[in-house]
Amino acid sequence: MTDVATNPDGRPIQTKGPVLVVGSGLLGASAALALRAADIEVYLQDISPTSLALARDLGAGEAYDSSSPEPALVIVAVPPDVTAECVVSALKEHPDAVVTDVASVKSIIIDEVENSGIDTSKYVPSHPMAGRERSGAAAADRDLFIGRPWVVVRRAGSDASAQVVVRNLAVDLGATVLEMDAGEHDRGVATVSHVPQLVASLLAARLRDATEESLDLAGQGLRDTTRIAASDPRLWTSIVSGNCGPVVDVLHEFRSDLDNLIEGLESGARDGFGAHGSVGAINAVVSAGNDGVSRIPGKHGGAPQRWAIVEVLVPDKPGELARLFSELGAVGINIEDLTIDHSAHQRVGAARIAVEPTRARDAEVELEARGWRIVTQ
Amino acid sequence: MTDVATNPDGRPIQTKGPVLVVGSGLLGASAALALRAADIEVYLQDISPTSLALARDLGAGEAYDSSSPEPALVIVAVPPDVTAECVVSALKEHPDAVVTDVASVKSIIIDEVENSGIDTSKYVPSHPMAGRERSGAAAADRDLFIGRPWVVVRRAGSDASAQVVVRNLAVDLGATVLEMDAGEHDRGVATVSHVPQLVASLLAARLRDATEESLDLAGQGLRDTTRIAASDPRLWTSIVSGNCGPVVDVLHEFRSDLDNLIEGLESGARDGFGAHGSVGAINAVVSAGNDGVSRIPGKHGGAPQRWAIVEVLVPDKPGELARLFSELGAVGINIEDLTIDHSAHQRVGAARIAVEPTRARDAEVELEARGWRIVTQ
Repeated sequence: MTDVATNPDGRPIQTKGPVLVVGSGLLGASAALALRAADIEVYLQDISPTSLALARDLGAGEAYDSSSPEPALVIVAVPPDVTAECVVSALKEHPDAVVTDVASVKSIIIDEVENSGIDTSKYVPSHPMAGRERSGAAAADRDLFIGRPWVVVRRAGSDASAQVVVRNLAVDLGATVLEMDAGEHDRGVATVSHVPQLVASLLAARLRDATEESLDLAGQGLRDTTRIAASDPRLWTSIVSGNCGPVVDVLHEFRSDLDNLIEGLESGARDGFGAHGSVGAINAVVSAGNDGVSRIPGKHGGAPQRWAIVEVLVPDKPGELARLFSELGAVGINIEDLTIDHSAHQRVGAARIAVEPTRARDAEVELEARGWRIVTQ
Repeated sequence: MTDVATNPDGRPIQTKGPVLVVGSGLLGASAALALRAADIEVYLQDISPTSLALARDLGAGEAYDSSSPEPALVIVAVPPDVTAECVVSALKEHPDAVVTDVASVKSIIIDEVENSGIDTSKYVPSHPMAGRERSGAAAADRDLFIGRPWVVVRRAGSDASAQVVVRNLAVDLGATVLEMDAGEHDRGVATVSHVPQLVASLLAARLRDATEESLDLAGQGLRDTTRIAASDPRLWTSIVSGNCGPVVDVLHEFRSDLDNLIEGLESGARDGFGAHGSVGAINAVVSAGNDGVSRIPGKHGGAPQRWAIVEVLVPDKPGELARLFSELGAVGINIEDLTIDHSAHQRVGAARIAVEPTRARDAEVELEARGWRIVTQ
């Protein structure tokens, strides 16, 4: 609990209660906790009495009943496949309230709500990009939305004032608001989230048949590209099955490029080293990937920034990384990003530290003076 | 230079000079520097006088000429497409020397060497897994091989004593030796390295057509899966074009899974939420990915270890990460791995710190006591 009702950036809270949160899972309970921390009146509904009791015990709000006040805002935070139905109920039962939902797919839900025949002017669909590995109220955290994108969907049928209420909710919870229409959202999440997940899974699936020895050849590149393949199949099935159309579109484009690559490589397998077809196909794919990856925004949504990388060998024993960062901190160098390279059987790790390009040389000199071994880039 | 001729693990150096290094690029010059640091006599050959002069000036050894002593070991470290030719020359010119090469593809080179008609009993193909972003002698480092896998190829035509010489070389340079036959190596690197690179590039290529706003939705998952898509097209063209056969085999398997997925999703796009075909297809792909990724070995080649993750909000200002790690170090907690989650527009980063599961609670308590905000997992 905070004493002053400000959001994580210090801005005054704009959301007016009472707020009714329908669904006390991870997103619902996290939003409820954040609103309660800002002293906003919160009521909870859940079809599971156990989940509801857990969220209430965590301080997320009171159970909603017939004696509760009419909500000014309803947040529908239930699984995607039942979201439309819950939104329609909320619009009917609370005709004066603004209603939003937080499902990760939008068009399929909006279509169902609009086809219900009721007045949908107070419905503003949204999508906070704030998943976690674990689900349920037990994993809830009032800081869950801080710094995350929160899509507020532009929709012809929504009132402008309702749109403002949902924008304010996102800002109050510390998120960054992005406004786009539902089609752009669904195509966007297919491209930046759903297809990367499926492709990482398809790639990792190839490791099932690999020999133990060949897996010892795995380096950081394989670890990076397959990390999200460890995700929960149920979660992803529920997300992707609501966005099949846009996902299929992106996968068709992916497969078309893959087919061209395979064709080129087959000519190389036939004609040997440097065969014209294979060289052209590989170069085209890797170059196109360069162009694509360079478009991912950097920190704070700015242009992708090129940090300088300082690579340091770190003995694998307690306190060594701490000493490294402490010594960098002591000379005033900010660590912008870092990865630790673990190869199989390795007793010495390589820490790759991203720093401001103008500070890279200083960092190397200072670290070498303190006995660290720098790997030349 | 070290005074005592021991390898990075403190074991006595076994390699006997003189060593002739053919090709003074990144791998050749790095190996030469490491051998010189162990006081082994090293000679260098390179078709480029400039590259040779640079390596010599860096202390990698002397230029080889007609007055130089006969080498006991020749390391061929030239681009893959000219490796076989250089190996054959070395075997002819130095019939008493053991000859190895360091190219990243093996079968295509071995076939060409064996088809030359000369005695190949002293040829032991190898592959140190130690690339860098930059190439050339200027990027060379004697520590380049420390802790990296170094494949020494088992080949029916190699002398056992020659095999031992190349094993010793790898150990002396601090690498971990893996012995496998050429086919297993080529299939292995296709699966764990070449196909992941190509798939990451194909995935990143989809971002070329994405809208700016949808790229703002990018999270850590996209960044992880596409990081290696920033790699050099020339480097990868030269690597993959020598291993087309195994790469095509793995890509065909990948495409077969992809086709099944697309078929399932198309039924979902037609039949709506929870369509049987899409649910089954998505679940199958993500589950198979779970199985595959769980086979990647953990640190030190042991079974994949489950670290506990402690997630901490870190204000984006100089010294904060340093303070975090310094405070963890002070309470004796070793950081096993970490990632920093940068979402677009984020002013607060989330550091995900992997620690021994038994220490996770301690870490959280100690950090909270010092004013850090922990994100509940």
